[in-house]
Amino acid sequence: MFEITHRHHTARTGLLKTPHGVIETPAFVAVGTQAAVKALTPQDLHTVGIQAVFGNTYHLYLRPGAEVIAKLGGLHRFMGWDGPILTDSGGFQVFSLGAAIEHGVGKIASIFPGETRGRPSGSGNQSLVRLDDDGVTFRSHLDGSTHRFTPESVIDVQRKLGADIMLVLDECTSPLHDRAYTAAAMHRTHQWAARARRRFQQTAPAYTGTATPQALFGIVQGGAYRDLREQSAQVIAGLDFDGIAIGGSLGKSKQEMFRVLEWTVPLLPDEKARHLLGIGEVADIFAIVERGVDTFDCVAPTRMARNGSLLSREAGASSNFRLNLRNARFRDDPAPVDPACSCPTCRCFSRAYLHHLIRAKEILAHHLATVHNLYFMTRLMAEIRQAIRQERLADLREEWGICASP
Amino acid sequence: MFEITHRHHTARTGLLKTPHGVIETPAFVAVGTQAAVKALTPQDLHTVGIQAVFGNTYHLYLRPGAEVIAKLGGLHRFMGWDGPILTDSGGFQVFSLGAAIEHGVGKIASIFPGETRGRPSGSGNQSLVRLDDDGVTFRSHLDGSTHRFTPESVIDVQRKLGADIMLVLDECTSPLHDRAYTAAAMHRTHQWAARARRRFQQTAPAYTGTATPQALFGIVQGGAYRDLREQSAQVIAGLDFDGIAIGGSLGKSKQEMFRVLEWTVPLLPDEKARHLLGIGEVADIFAIVERGVDTFDCVAPTRMARNGSLLSREAGASSNFRLNLRNARFRDDPAPVDPACSCPTCRCFSRAYLHHLIRAKEILAHHLATVHNLYFMTRLMAEIRQAIRQERLADLREEWGICASP
Repeated sequence: MFEITHRHHTARTGLLKTPHGVIETPAFVAVGTQAAVKALTPQDLHTVGIQAVFGNTYHLYLRPGAEVIAKLGGLHRFMGWDGPILTDSGGFQVFSLGAAIEHGVGKIASIFPGETRGRPSGSGNQSLVRLDDDGVTFRSHLDGSTHRFTPESVIDVQRKLGADIMLVLDECTSPLHDRAYTAAAMHRTHQWAARARRRFQQTAPAYTGTATPQALFGIVQGGAYRDLREQSAQVIAGLDFDGIAIGGSLGKSKQEMFRVLEWTVPLLPDEKARHLLGIGEVADIFAIVERGVDTFDCVAPTRMARNGSLLSREAGASSNFRLNLRNARFRDDPAPVDPACSCPTCRCFSRAYLHHLIRAKEILAHHLATVHNLYFMTRLMAEIRQAIRQERLADLREEWGICASP
Repeated sequence: MFEITHRHHTARTGLLKTPHGVIETPAFVAVGTQAAVKALTPQDLHTVGIQAVFGNTYHLYLRPGAEVIAKLGGLHRFMGWDGPILTDSGGFQVFSLGAAIEHGVGKIASIFPGETRGRPSGSGNQSLVRLDDDGVTFRSHLDGSTHRFTPESVIDVQRKLGADIMLVLDECTSPLHDRAYTAAAMHRTHQWAARARRRFQQTAPAYTGTATPQALFGIVQGGAYRDLREQSAQVIAGLDFDGIAIGGSLGKSKQEMFRVLEWTVPLLPDEKARHLLGIGEVADIFAIVERGVDTFDCVAPTRMARNGSLLSREAGASSNFRLNLRNARFRDDPAPVDPACSCPTCRCFSRAYLHHLIRAKEILAHHLATVHNLYFMTRLMAEIRQAIRQERLADLREEWGICASP
């Protein structure tokens, strides 16, 4: 399903083929947690050049439910998006949202599994996430109702959703977990991966007659521990998945994240696509592509947009390419958000107008800002693909004022 | 500026010409209070067939300010809308929002002028709206700062905004005001109207070289008192405005509103356009068009959309043509919102998907619902225009299941 079209050092361009079309890689995948990329229609996604959308199995399973989506013709038809969809397994949400309910806080960096071993802080005896070797029982963050995911049930849910690329259920650990717990979770993740693979092989595809069938990606775990990451890469590489995702804790700093990629990627099958889960700030993109990542998803561009933080090359690497359009200095600024951008927002509207909409709490601000930030991302990725083909990725990075990552 | 193209009883079709194009009447004007129709881009407005947008002088004067908008090329360029724009005078907002701050409540039906005479309830001695014969001093609902509007200053503001159709400053009374106060306010409104007209004639147009210049509409007041309405209609009709708006209290019931129109419209110059301020529920539209109204504005279609209330002919007149998409019965309904509709929302999405987005608090719900409700309104108005040309407006009303208004 993956065809590498050019290589330059460890970076590569490729064509990732799915039942709903081909993704040119390296590619940013827009996050559409609840069957919608926030504030955009599918037509808008095409306009800004988004190639694929990332849905969340946990959220969609709880609301509106996999049965409802299946009855309505699958996730593509439900949300009106005819391009490729990736769905995660729900593992990350089970652990992070479960812990969030339990502790009465928002989604948090520390993720509490339902066992005492390795639990990073005392948090009472009653966990809302109960983990065993067979699967995980959790409470809905919506209504507190009890549910259970197993590696098999999560495959079944994703078949019902009709995802083009599915992910296996994994146990997601946090940087606060100790080595022993991270290792135990990793081993469980490996056993679950094999079970998910079997279930995938035993179940009927959602699509027949497409040139490319639905695909299943395994997930490498192992925290920020080199030997665990290497072990996990080898085990997952040996399970004949269609592609490999890199998940879990990527350490406490960007440097640690880059180390994790350097430990992991060389041990993965070269010919298979690699997806990095949940990463995608502009400054990181060159570093992860240089280390061989093909696709990645991140809420940052869309979430930043809704907070009035717009990507602009003019803002420079020192500002993470962000303009805070709430700032009073934009009150009468007639320039577009990014003078180098030709997105629908920059073609038609000034910074002053965006500033006004944000201050006035007009929801049109969310739409216009999201259009711009996603267009910014897809244009950056197109530049990166071209630079790989022209074997000048480091030059492009320097033109963007981004230092080589340590 | 107004050309009547067909008449049938007191209803008529026409062409209302402005510097930014022609409005085919009868027409619904979409409300864009703060330089944006909530959740839609100007391109969306064209797509759904909106011909003109109604901006609020009060809001725009306070934020971002008329100077800022003028510096940025005027309201059309600022908000990216190249079609006609009407702006109100700010009178209604001064009185209703001023009273709302004063009393710590939201926008309210009872409007307190800053004088004790006629004040409908005891509300302390300190008013935030101080009215005198020359103008009105008020506090901003945003930051409490003090501002003053006069008939002249409001013309100057609207010239700066570059509105195609401007409205004179009026004193807006509520159904709770007594006859004596309503009469006094009406007389002041008449004096202000004459002053506004003079200022309009003495100031330079925002546009030169357009076939049609900027226009100024007078406003008829007089509450629900027949003699006052008749007097106001005659006085305003005598001031040679480009068109006439009907404002203020339209009584406590729809029946009273229809009576106000029946008293007022016959006394207005037949050849001039008539705008009804702030009215536009589906069931009322036939009644107001039948009584000779040419244009009207209303927040209902857009506000309802954001509340999950979508217009559907299928819902019928008994439900005011509304479907509450929050209702659980739509959870797995594969039908479009309105099976008879061909708007972008109905072409691509199911009731089930809208229901899901509303429940999941996705802001895309606001966008898709607003697209539908405005398209519904513009299609209805196109049907009404055709019915007038075919002299079958009453038949069309009956096809819609709406009784003749009493």
